[in-house]
This record gives sequence, C-alpha cells and structure tokens, in this order.
Amino acid sequence: MAVEVVEAPWGAGVPVERFEEILKADKSHLIKAVLVTHNETATGVRSDIAAVRRALDAAGHSALLLVDGVSSIGCMDFRMDEWAVDVAVTGSQKGFMLPVGLAIVAFSRRAIAAIEQADLPRTFFDVRDMARSYANGAYPYTPAVGLLNGLKVSAEMLMAEGLENVFARHRRIASGVRAAVAAWGLELCAAEPSLYSETVSAIRTPSGFDANTIISHAAQKYDVAFGVSLGEVAGKLFRIGHLGSLTDVMMLSGLAAAEMAMADVGIPIRLGSGVAAAQDHYRAAHADRYKVAA
Amino acid sequence: MAVEVVEAPWGAGVPVERFEEILKADKSHLIKAVLVTHNETATGVRSDIAAVRRALDAAGHSALLLVDGVSSIGCMDFRMDEWAVDVAVTGSQKGFMLPVGLAIVAFSRRAIAAIEQADLPRTFFDVRDMARSYANGAYPYTPAVGLLNGLKVSAEMLMAEGLENVFARHRRIASGVRAAVAAWGLELCAAEPSLYSETVSAIRTPSGFDANTIISHAAQKYDVAFGVSLGEVAGKLFRIGHLGSLTDVMMLSGLAAAEMAMADVGIPIRLGSGVAAAQDHYRAAHADRYKVAA
Amino acid sequence: MAVEVVEAPWGAGVPVERFEEILKADKSHLIKAVLVTHNETATGVRSDIAAVRRALDAAGHSALLLVDGVSSIGCMDFRMDEWAVDVAVTGSQKGFMLPVGLAIVAFSRRAIAAIEQADLPRTFFDVRDMARSYANGAYPYTPAVGLLNGLKVSAEMLMAEGLENVFARHRRIASGVRAAVAAWGLELCAAEPSLYSETVSAIRTPSGFDANTIISHAAQKYDVAFGVSLGEVAGKLFRIGHLGSLTDVMMLSGLAAAEMAMADVGIPIRLGSGVAAAQDHYRAAHADRYKVAA
Amino acid sequence: MAVEVVEAPWGAGVPVERFEEILKADKSHLIKAVLVTHNETATGVRSDIAAVRRALDAAGHSALLLVDGVSSIGCMDFRMDEWAVDVAVTGSQKGFMLPVGLAIVAFSRRAIAAIEQADLPRTFFDVRDMARSYANGAYPYTPAVGLLNGLKVSAEMLMAEGLENVFARHRRIASGVRAAVAAWGLELCAAEPSLYSETVSAIRTPSGFDANTIISHAAQKYDVAFGVSLGEVAGKLFRIGHLGSLTDVMMLSGLAAAEMAMADVGIPIRLGSGVAAAQDHYRAAHADRYKVAA
Repeated sequence: MAVEVVEAPWGAGVPVERFEEILKADKSHLIKAVLVTHNETATGVRSDIAAVRRALDAAGHSALLLVDGVSSIGCMDFRMDEWAVDVAVTGSQKGFMLPVGLAIVAFSRRAIAAIEQADLPRTFFDVRDMARSYANGAYPYTPAVGLLNGLKVSAEMLMAEGLENVFARHRRIASGVRAAVAAWGLELCAAEPSLYSETVSAIRTPSGFDANTIISHAAQKYDVAFGVSLGEVAGKLFRIGHLGSLTDVMMLSGLAAAEMAMADVGIPIRLGSGVAAAQDHYRAAHADRYKVAA
Repeated sequence: MAVEVVEAPWGAGVPVERFEEILKADKSHLIKAVLVTHNETATGVRSDIAAVRRALDAAGHSALLLVDGVSSIGCMDFRMDEWAVDVAVTGSQKGFMLPVGLAIVAFSRRAIAAIEQADLPRTFFDVRDMARSYANGAYPYTPAVGLLNGLKVSAEMLMAEGLENVFARHRRIASGVRAAVAAWGLELCAAEPSLYSETVSAIRTPSGFDANTIISHAAQKYDVAFGVSLGEVAGKLFRIGHLGSLTDVMMLSGLAAAEMAMADVGIPIRLGSGVAAAQDHYRAAHADRYKVAA
Repeated sequence: MAVEVVEAPWGAGVPVERFEEILKADKSHLIKAVLVTHNETATGVRSDIAAVRRALDAAGHSALLLVDGVSSIGCMDFRMDEWAVDVAVTGSQKGFMLPVGLAIVAFSRRAIAAIEQADLPRTFFDVRDMARSYANGAYPYTPAVGLLNGLKVSAEMLMAEGLENVFARHRRIASGVRAAVAAWGLELCAAEPSLYSETVSAIRTPSGFDANTIISHAAQKYDVAFGVSLGEVAGKLFRIGHLGSLTDVMMLSGLAAAEMAMADVGIPIRLGSGVAAAQDHYRAAHADRYKVAA
Repeated sequence: MAVEVVEAPWGAGVPVERFEEILKADKSHLIKAVLVTHNETATGVRSDIAAVRRALDAAGHSALLLVDGVSSIGCMDFRMDEWAVDVAVTGSQKGFMLPVGLAIVAFSRRAIAAIEQADLPRTFFDVRDMARSYANGAYPYTPAVGLLNGLKVSAEMLMAEGLENVFARHRRIASGVRAAVAAWGLELCAAEPSLYSETVSAIRTPSGFDANTIISHAAQKYDVAFGVSLGEVAGKLFRIGHLGSLTDVMMLSGLAAAEMAMADVGIPIRLGSGVAAAQDHYRAAHADRYKVAA
C-alpha cells in the first residue's frame, strides 16, 4: 500500500485540480482512497469537499472519499450523502461539546463493502465487530457509557437548536472574529475568503513578533489558551478556536484577551478595536429578531 | 421586640453618626442588636463595619453587632475579630462559589452567651442543637453532604490562592469595571469611591432609558444576565456581579455585553470604549509579575 | 396560638378517635389546623390520613389538615385531593432521590385562602412572594437551580416508571424486609400490620442488646448506615430505610449486613436466614412477568 | 513478524514449562517478546508472572516480557520491577475505578530501548511522541483531561487506603465469593486454588442449565449484570466481577442475586446458603480489629 501525499502551501485549501489530474492519470485505479481534511485545524482552512467529489466523478475514478471532519462536523455544513463521502470521522470533543474519548465514524454503503473485501488483518479497529454487536444492542468491548450518554444529550441539543441555526451561529461568531482581525490590521493564515474556517482562525503575527510568546503570555497572565502553530508557520501565527457551546459574548472575551496579550508583547494594537468590530457584527446579526421594544 | 430601621438614601452607606446618636440616646440599653449589611447587593455599596463598631464602643453600648456579609465574605476583607462582629452570615453561592443551599453563620462568644439567655421559642433555627451535634462530629438534621464537601473544596481553593490574593483579584476586577463605567460617561449608584463595592457594580442608566429593557434585551439577544434594580431606583440602574471564580478576561465579556445592550437600546456608547478602559487596567495590574520575556 | 399535642405510644399510629373527640369538643373552632405525620420515620409507622379526614368531617370541623409526608410522598400512595389535605410537605432527599435542599410544599385552595387571611408577620416563609414570582416564571430569592433541575428529572423518572409501579416496588421491598425480620424472630416497632411503613422499618432488638452498638458496629466494620432510635425507644431499635432509587437486590445487602452486625454482637441469628426469607419474597413477586424461558 | 500462540485449556494458567521449552529451543532469539495475561477476565484465572520471568531467565532468552494486567493492576499484587516486566498495560475502568477511556501503559528501560530501535512505522501509537511531550508537561494530542484528573484522585484513594489493604480487601471479597460457590456445590472455571483470581470468578453451571439464561434473567428481573462466557465455555459459566470500589456487603448483594437467578431457572440452590458462607467469611475477617465493645 503506497501513499501519495499531495502537498499544498500552508493556508491553501485542498488542490482539487491536482487531485483530478492524478486521478485521471491512474487509469488502472490503483488509488483506493482519497483522504481530505474538511477543516484544517492548524491553519483555519476549509476545503471544498464537493469539489473533490466532482474531481473523482470527472475522472470516473472509483476511489473511496475519506474525510477528516474532526473540527467541522456538528459546526459547519457537512453533506455526507450529497458529497458522496465514503468515510467521515469526527470526535466527541469538538462540535459535540463533550470530553475527549469517542471517535465517531460514518461509513457509506460502498465503504462497508470495501471493509468486507479488505484483506489487511484487523483486530481492535475491525468495525465489523461493532456492526455485529450493534445489531444486538450491544458493544464488542467495554463501552464508554458516560460519553455515549453524553453524545445522546449533545445530539439532542444540536437538534433542538436546529442544525441550520448551529451552522449560522458558527458563521456569525467566526465573521466577528475576522472583523476583529481586520480591525487589528492583521491577516489570517487562510489565503482567501472562500477558505475561511467557521470553527478556528489562525492569525498571522507581524514579523518580528513570536506568536508562541503571545500564547504563553496569555496563558500565564490571562488564563486564556490560544492554539500554537506547527511546521512551517511555527511561531508565526496563533489560533483562536470558536466552536461548540459558544456565544457571541464568550467570543468577545477571547478577542479582548488576544488584544491585551498582543499589546503586552509590543504589537501596536489599539485596545478594544477588534472587540468593537466584532461587537458591531454581533449587534447587527438578527437585529430584526431581537428588536428592542420602543 | 421592636425594630428601629435607620433609613439612608439609595447609594449611601450605613449612616454611622446616626447609629451613634441612637445608641448614645439608648441609656437603658433596650437595643439588643445592631444589624448592618456589609455589602449592599442591590446598590453596590460597601459600608464601614469598623466604624459601626467604633460607634458602639463610643456609645459604650452593649448591643450585639450582626452583619450581613452575604456578598462580601470570601471576596472582600472581613474582620470578624478585629471589628468584634457578633454574628456574621453568608451563603454558599457567592464567595464560596457553590450552588445555593448553605447559610454559613459565625458567632462570637458574646453571641453564644446571648443565645443561651434568649427566651424566644426556637426549633429549626436553634443553633444549640447544631453545636451539640457538631461536638459529636454529627448534624442534628439530614445534612447537605454534597454542599458541605463542596465547602471544604472551595475553602481549600481560597486558601490555596491566598485570601489576600483573592481580595486583590476582586479589587482589580472591580476597578476595571469602574474604569469601563467612567469611559462610558456613566455613574455608579454608590455615592462616592469609599463606598464602592468590590463584588457588584450598580450602574445608573442615562435618564430616558429604562434599565430593565437593557437587562431583558441582554438576556434575550446575548444570553447574559445583568441584575435588576429594586425600590426607588427600579428601572434606573442595572447591576454587574463580579465575584467568586472570575478572571479579568471573563469580566471583559460582561462589559462587552453591556456595551452592546446599551447601544442596542440607543444609549450613545462607543463600542469597545469601556472594554478598552478595563483592558488598560488589567494589563497594568501585576505588570511586573507577568513581564514578557525580551 | 396554643398547640395541643395528642400523645400516642411509640409504635402506634395517629389516634384518630381521640382526634375526633377533641374536634367535636371544640364547638367554637378554636383549632385552626390538625397536624399529622403520614409516615413516622423514627418508628416506621404509617398513619391513616383518610381516617383523620373522616374525623374532621364527622366533627364538622373547619380546621385545616396539615400532613408531614416527608418519608411517604413519592414512595407510598398519597391522595392530596381525595383526602382533602390542605398542606402537604416533603423534601428533595427522600422519594425524589435528590440531595437535601428543597422543601416541597403543596397547598389546597382553602390553605391558600387561609394564608391570605393570616395576620402573623412573615418574611422568608411568606409563600405569597413565591406565588407572585412563579406567575412570572421567576423566583423571589436566589433559587437552587441545580436541585430544581434535578426535581424535574426525578419527577420524570417517577412518571416513566409509573406511580403505581413505584408504590408497588416500595411495597414489595418492604414486605421482603418484614419477611426477614420474622425469620430472625424479631419484631417491628410498629404495633400491627396496618401500621407498617413501606419506606422504613424499625426493628426491636432482643432485650439485653443495645441497638446503638449494632448501628455503630455496622458502620465501622461493614460501612453500612442503619438509623438510630430516639426518645423512649432509644437503644431498643435500629432502623432500615428502604425508599427511593432502590432495587430488591440492593435491599438484600442491607439485610445481610444487619445479620452480620447482629451476629457480631451476640444475637443468636442464623446467617442468611433473613436474606433467604426476603429472597423467597422477591423471587415470587412478578414471577409470571419474569418467567424463565423453557 | 510471526506470532506463536501457546494454547492452554480453559481454566488453566499460562503453561510456563511449555514457554520455557519454546524459549530454550529458540537459540537465535527470533522471539522478540512473550505476551502473558496476568489475570484472565474470561475465566477468572490468575497466571504466575514471576514463573514466566524465571522461564525467560532459565532459557537465557532476551525476549521482552509483555503483560496484560487490565483486570489485576490496582487490585492484585503486581511487581513490575521484581518480575522484570517490560511492558504492562491496564485501563482506567478496572482497579482505578474510573470510566473507560485511558489505556495505562508502563515500560521498562529495556522496552524503551526496544521502542527506539524498532523500525515498524508508527503514528498514533508512537509513545515517543508522548515521552517528548511529557518532558514539557504537555501531551501530543488532545488529552482526556477529565480522566487524567480522575486518575490522580483514584491513585490518591488507593494510596490512602494503602496498596496492601487494597489487595487484602480484594482477597477477602474473592474468598467470600468462593465460599459461596462451594456452599452452592458448584465449581469455578479456574482449575485449582493457585489459579484463583481475586477480581473475577467464573462459575460453572450444572450440566443441563444454560448460563446465558441465568445472566439474561438476572439482568431482566433483578437488574444485576453478570458476565457472559465465551468460546469453548460459552453457556457453561457465568462470571461475577469483584474489583474496584467494592465492600463485603456490596458483594453479598451480588451473591444473593446469583442465588435467586439460579433458583429461578431450576438449579437446586438453597436460598441464602452462599450468602451465609460469605457472611461467615466476612465476619471472621479482621474480627479482632472490629471487636464489639463488651
């Protein structure tokens, strides 16, 4: 089993055209699966899964489409059926608002068929054992009962809010964050608006300032945890997560903390400027729905 | 048993001189106890308990000193022994950061003696039953075990942080709130700085704006609960609580929400202005302790 | 306000005939209320509230009927309307299976009317403040939100099991306990079967054996808490509580512990004899419902 | 990589002599590791890890010793250093009394060295990533913070009780279970006393009775979960787990439930007989420590 990694610059999305070329060139269908990350947590970049599906279809290729939806599913629109995703994976600790502990995996019928035909030896990760047990209302190993109960509750919470409303809330909160970043005169790692993630924003710090210093300072002085950066962009950006059980006002405290931490390290940020830009955005959202009585 | 209520304007502290007059006039010591609220939750006013003690002493009066410390104990400096307080009461749900459910009462030796001599019939509130049971490591009724365990943990948390640090944190957070109020061009209900509470700020809204509209709007649109006003000041102020398990950054989200709600009802507030004033204050606090590495 | 206490022997129920005599003698209706305990926790005695209502009616007396249902409501059949109870009180920590903290009080229309006409000064216990707040979906003081949410859940649990099933479960568990007591050759404090409580059994120890020694020994050696006895029967009985979230099998462990503790202090108990009697009872219950497949 | 499985009858322990033969025959040390289960959960059989170590030493073999201690560590004596175990694994949900979720793995210095030299590709299970992060007080992936905090508490609980006391408690509870089994006239799956597990007992049902019927009946009628049997002994035994946060009295309820369920399916069990045998055992344990005051 060989793996071909398609490189893309940090901040870019999945290079769909390159995927299509490779798939078209693979006349004998040696490629068994295409793996894509829907929402890149390290860079705050959302890729276009529908386009990857179109590339597969354009190439007439039979490869399975496997999607890492860890930081998107339950927060951003994800269309398992419409995009003909074959395997989608997420965790309990993001959109489902639970502690870490569950890997949640969905399979298409084609993926199920592929599992049956696969001849790689499997033990713990053999989902057929789970399928067999599920059929009897059971579980093949000791189940994480607490998390499974929690998943039931968080799924009910998401359905009660309405998935469309959940997605809209994430969009609104993320737009506010981006308004703040613009007000600070800074840039996101994501190269262009179509790539902006609704669940995490990676903010490039001005040259000469170490992003990791901002992060450790914010943790120490303000008890706020920003995300570190990795690889090529290490030290060049810090990340703000904005997903799950989050309100506009909770988001503002993160923006206010970022302003203070950046000011403390010497970045010429006007305090309150990013907060005000986000406030403007949040006030306007649903303005008609929450009209103040005259 | 007659009760004499000493009136004071909303926003004023306990009128200590008036207390002293009344006590001096009570030659035959008919007054059995003086009741004072240390921190008036409805107005954000802190009274000077040490001064009340001095008034009692100046009058040579034997009345007991009973203090309501519900919203001060565990947050603001309270000196049971130094001020010779006879009965102090607080709850589990404020400085002790627990759910509602425990009334926590402390008695001086003089208060204990008064309890023994009192001839009012008592049943549930007869603390002697508790004293007797405590002596055997027991409780006279079914105890709220969960809250008692919680109280042990919260007391340990307060001692681990250090009471002086806990008080300083509340002072710092409150000062930031007051910096925001000043930046908004608004005023507190508390009449002067010596009366400012470190745990709750009652903010007067400009005339023509109903504070209750701000409060209900903030709850509906922003999911943030501000406190309503009562009595003479009803509709004229809204309250921000800032006590317990709270950080500077958490406070900023409350200030940001107040800004948006005030702007939404038409008060000419510059968004981010109060937040920036508080950020300035919080950045400066302990600046030397959290110095950024060069 | 005078209070007339009607004495009854320990182990007897409410002396209904004596109540009727007193009520008939009170021609001018000076008696404002009759207070009765439905289920006496200290003795494991259930009184006949319906009969007390009949005594009131037979006397044509207008006194309110106040019932302490702390250890019965939610476990044993209680008919507020049918028995024309005016005030019923219970707590969160018994049939509702929650931590201590809520007093749950129900009022009849007559009781509400009496509250309006009463002229005793009231503050904290003035339920009219609660009624006014409830009408606005609010609460007059800081509410115990956690316990109120818990009450919602426990009420849902009781309704899901079905009140009739909940009562039947308590009857079945209590009958098993009584079968064990009979097998041990011991007697209950409750004087006769019609008085047997379904939620607590007070067991008389043979003369020469201190019940309190059994209780403290069981706590120390077996980590099991039996209830102490009070007043005239102090040291003469120990109590087994059997209410709330309890199964037949959980009950058996309490009986087994009682056997070991009694044997340890020298009471000639055959180990397993009471357990076996209760097992017989529990096996027979619903035998048809849980028939083993052939 | 080839795997040689050494078969042993159900109910037998690890065949140490056979291990020694195989190891001695492997002159060129092709065998890289010997895997042994300390306590076989499916059969209630404890194997002699010290003997396996001696077999390795007697053969002068360099293979690593890998031990599955899932259902023994934290309950039964386990000597990582004395037995020179190279890798030991357990979970959070057994002796550590927590929810499922943590795999807890310990490595010897030799195992660490082997990890460094291994050339199998590894990603998620590469413990070197963890070692590197631990060195900075961090974690390579999103950590299960709740379970890690829980592990701290459960480790403190075990140390507060004292490991020797924890082991003695498991021995005492298990002996009581075995006394009950003997009183019922039944046999364990474990072939002889030296193999008896202190944490789980697998009980053979008399021929003609399906163990799975007992298990499902106990679950339905008595709300008690016994363990099913697998493989060759499927339907021939049911298992009682007795580990973790467990007292003698809690154990008795499990035994009482087993008696009722067995009687219900027609096995000629005298109710209370096994309970009485266990009670005898538990009463005697520490009899001097818990002597009743004269």
